[in-house]
Amino acid sequence: MSEELAAGPKESPPAPRPGPREVWKKGGRLLSVLLTVNALLLACTLISGGAFNKVAVYDTDVFALLTTMMLLAALWILFYLLRTARCPDAVPYRDAHAGPVWLRGGLVLFGVCTLVMDVFKTGYYSSFFECQSAIKILYPLIQAVFVIVQTYFLWVSAKDCVHIHLDLTRCGLMFTLTTNLAIWMAAVVDESVHQAHSYSSSHSNASHTRLAPDPERASSPVGGDACSCNTALCQIFQQGYFYLYPFNIEYSLFASTMLYVMWKNVGRLLAPSHGHSHVLSRFSLFRETFFVGPTLGLMLFVVGLAVFIIYEVQVSAEGGQTQQALLIYYTFNIVCLGLMTLVSLSGSIIYRFDRRAMDHHKNPTRTLDVALLMGAALGQYAISYYSIVAVVVGMPKDLLGGLNLAHALLLIAQHTFQNVFIIESLHRGPPGAEPQDTPPKEPCHGLTFANVGALHTLPACPPTPSLVGSSSEGPQEVAAIILAPRGHWRRRCLRDISLFLLPCNVILWIMPAFGARPHFSNPVEVNFYGYALWAAIVNVCLPFGIFYRMHAVSSLLEVYVLS
Amino acid sequence: MSEELAAGPKESPPAPRPGPREVWKKGGRLLSVLLTVNALLLACTLISGGAFNKVAVYDTDVFALLTTMMLLAALWILFYLLRTARCPDAVPYRDAHAGPVWLRGGLVLFGVCTLVMDVFKTGYYSSFFECQSAIKILYPLIQAVFVIVQTYFLWVSAKDCVHIHLDLTRCGLMFTLTTNLAIWMAAVVDESVHQAHSYSSSHSNASHTRLAPDPERASSPVGGDACSCNTALCQIFQQGYFYLYPFNIEYSLFASTMLYVMWKNVGRLLAPSHGHSHVLSRFSLFRETFFVGPTLGLMLFVVGLAVFIIYEVQVSAEGGQTQQALLIYYTFNIVCLGLMTLVSLSGSIIYRFDRRAMDHHKNPTRTLDVALLMGAALGQYAISYYSIVAVVVGMPKDLLGGLNLAHALLLIAQHTFQNVFIIESLHRGPPGAEPQDTPPKEPCHGLTFANVGALHTLPACPPTPSLVGSSSEGPQEVAAIILAPRGHWRRRCLRDISLFLLPCNVILWIMPAFGARPHFSNPVEVNFYGYALWAAIVNVCLPFGIFYRMHAVSSLLEVYVLS
Repeated sequence: MSEELAAGPKESPPAPRPGPREVWKKGGRLLSVLLTVNALLLACTLISGGAFNKVAVYDTDVFALLTTMMLLAALWILFYLLRTARCPDAVPYRDAHAGPVWLRGGLVLFGVCTLVMDVFKTGYYSSFFECQSAIKILYPLIQAVFVIVQTYFLWVSAKDCVHIHLDLTRCGLMFTLTTNLAIWMAAVVDESVHQAHSYSSSHSNASHTRLAPDPERASSPVGGDACSCNTALCQIFQQGYFYLYPFNIEYSLFASTMLYVMWKNVGRLLAPSHGHSHVLSRFSLFRETFFVGPTLGLMLFVVGLAVFIIYEVQVSAEGGQTQQALLIYYTFNIVCLGLMTLVSLSGSIIYRFDRRAMDHHKNPTRTLDVALLMGAALGQYAISYYSIVAVVVGMPKDLLGGLNLAHALLLIAQHTFQNVFIIESLHRGPPGAEPQDTPPKEPCHGLTFANVGALHTLPACPPTPSLVGSSSEGPQEVAAIILAPRGHWRRRCLRDISLFLLPCNVILWIMPAFGARPHFSNPVEVNFYGYALWAAIVNVCLPFGIFYRMHAVSSLLEVYVLS
Repeated sequence: MSEELAAGPKESPPAPRPGPREVWKKGGRLLSVLLTVNALLLACTLISGGAFNKVAVYDTDVFALLTTMMLLAALWILFYLLRTARCPDAVPYRDAHAGPVWLRGGLVLFGVCTLVMDVFKTGYYSSFFECQSAIKILYPLIQAVFVIVQTYFLWVSAKDCVHIHLDLTRCGLMFTLTTNLAIWMAAVVDESVHQAHSYSSSHSNASHTRLAPDPERASSPVGGDACSCNTALCQIFQQGYFYLYPFNIEYSLFASTMLYVMWKNVGRLLAPSHGHSHVLSRFSLFRETFFVGPTLGLMLFVVGLAVFIIYEVQVSAEGGQTQQALLIYYTFNIVCLGLMTLVSLSGSIIYRFDRRAMDHHKNPTRTLDVALLMGAALGQYAISYYSIVAVVVGMPKDLLGGLNLAHALLLIAQHTFQNVFIIESLHRGPPGAEPQDTPPKEPCHGLTFANVGALHTLPACPPTPSLVGSSSEGPQEVAAIILAPRGHWRRRCLRDISLFLLPCNVILWIMPAFGARPHFSNPVEVNFYGYALWAAIVNVCLPFGIFYRMHAVSSLLEVYVLS
């Protein structure tokens, strides 16, 4: 967090402003980061204390803290919405790159799932109202209110560059971010405890019970011993809300990303909005390709969907079809990941022969994109390395062990090469920028689509003809520039590559997002690390892996448009 | 890590270079970061697997991995030293701000302690050579070689801005950094396991034994059951090497910081060195103060030293003097931290009346300084929050509990207010820059001491008269500029404040660095979290707290010079 604070915003120094408004921006940021760090550490301490401590910290303490935080954050959001609605000068600029539609759409989708989860949770806790602390019923209700308020707020305000109450807004945004992270942590801990409990109760005669946590502790979310969940309705509520946890986790991650971008945009100065994204969508989404990439990608997508359905049916069926399901799942994933790795690699090789200039200029949106791609990939990396160690050291001699190892290795390779390909693509100059004998020196030269927005922070940059999609040019000119390098086989190849990777990433997103968990169906890692540790690793890291897939899809779309 | 990669270097775009050398710097960085992430995750997996897994991962596996990594890193360092010695163009520039003397001195100090630890370790493992894997004796020997090579390398090359084999150098530096982090992780895990073992064996009849980890596992660093450490020499070796662990941990942290700065400096372009730091030390270290700050600070330092000695004697003595020792320790710390908080706060208040312009310009060294101050403070924050939760929820009704709570709260307040004071000080303009009616616009205006180095990355900046200590001015002029604001009480106050905080931070560094561990003498947290968890928290976080103190001292010296 502090690194981000220190690295600071990437726009040019602010233009001269009236005396009293000439504030030290980093001071306000420092304040809000300090608030976040302290609130987050307190929440983290209580939540981990609640999970590890056997006696003294009850989950009601955690619920009380989270409820208070959500109430405060919701109040601040309402205050913000009221203020910006009343004060027309509050939001003079809007950042066209913030809150893209895939992020806002995902937020609403996961928000709706969280609301359904809250209904289930309320129903579940109401089933044994008598012997339950009131906070446990209050918590999902307050959470539902918070989710509705926050989703509306982010949908409406994600692009805002606020210019009133700078310090208060920074602190409010950071506090809301902290609340989301705290909810995320609590959900991860709760889900791990629940999984470990259900695992230890289903394996109570197996040899691993000593590795599972204290059943007495694990049963606490299920209520005390006096109140058990016996009715059919209660059982449905319980199963439903645990099934919907992953969506709540994703919702918190999405909201955190958008809040962080809003925080970075507080007090930022931009030129009035320019609507280049419309030009982008009108002129750039239909471009020549070899049709091999998209066709192959769509085929893999359909096959993947079939594999996913077969896997889910076989795993949830009674009897021992898990082996076969895993065999199909791993085989498909290995083929898909292998192809993706090869294709990403060939994309990087094509760039070695591409003489377009690199874009060396600063671009805050691209910087955040790259950071998110690299950071989110860490989740999948970690899972894969834990798998590899378990398989290599544990040495299962069967086919499934080999497939598991190949799958983990290919996941690492695929994430690495895809990241390299995407990041290099995002740093390429626009299509028209063919080799120059003298390197570019003007600050406004060599901008890509991705940093058209950055242009408007440089006060002295008139739109240049090499800039594709700038609003000052007529549609004919734009089309001419876009079609200029038409027919070049390298461009076409790159487009094919991005259109192949796109549906592959979508199907690899759908599988874990909608409940495929080969990590637990496969006994190798569970037996090696013990259920509690392995559940914690997967529950912390997998949401990042899912987030990575969604982010990769949006980045690949940008790569397609750029190439 | 990815954020740093993405945030990138802060120098201006590189000057035009011959065609084939026009490389994409971020590509090389990406490569080295990917290498680090993968190597670090693999090491992390093996080390945590070795700690948590009861059977399959042996510590010999971890030792083998670390030994291999150290050998590779040492080989790369030798290659680097050879290449740069042979090739005069390899290091055209040296970054005057990198590797300051306190960092290099600390590195050598902790390096020597690590060597002593390695001697003890070799002696200890040699005591039962017959029934020990060879890698356990090889490991400390290789580590000694690695520490010698690396310390020499960092002492000689910490300031280098390398310009040959860019990608190889980046990867080599990152790999060495990874090796240090892996050693750090292994040491933390090993120390925690050892502490938990010695605690469980000394409390074997107490009620917490079920919280302590499996004694069979914990005893593995002590050798199998067949070979026990019975001779007096072996006992001394064992006790000695566990006493010296913290220095090894600090050594790894120091080396990592310096390697990271070297990595950032690879391929950086600077003007030839200018030696302003000499001017700084000659003209700025003797300045007018009220003498209240330094006097009070030195008094606290002496009292603190006495308290530390009393504490150590009473805790290590047989019998129940721990209570009294803790009472003295907490009382002194509360008084010291309270004074420091008040003084830092008054410093921040003084800045509210100070009309010196803020320095809005980019400064990579200052950015790193701020990031390290904020990041290292997180360690102490985390310990304090865990203490607070334990005291508040556990509710011990005695005096010691109250003192513990006050101590934890004051630690948080002191870190927060000291950070705010230091960071604001570092962002102030130079002493001569009094209020201006028009805000500064020229890129070379308003530079502070801290960013004189940044000046040389701006090609078109001639030295301006407002720049204190620039080498182009004669000593008389420099002195005149420094003494210009003489006698202003605010300046004097700020100097007094920094000179008061300086010895206080030194004594608060000495206490934990040389072995005061009230965290374990005090039973509140140990009983609350269980020994294993609490030892892990303290062992991970305390080294950052110690690092924070050393870094704060160097920053306060800079604040003193600047004000």
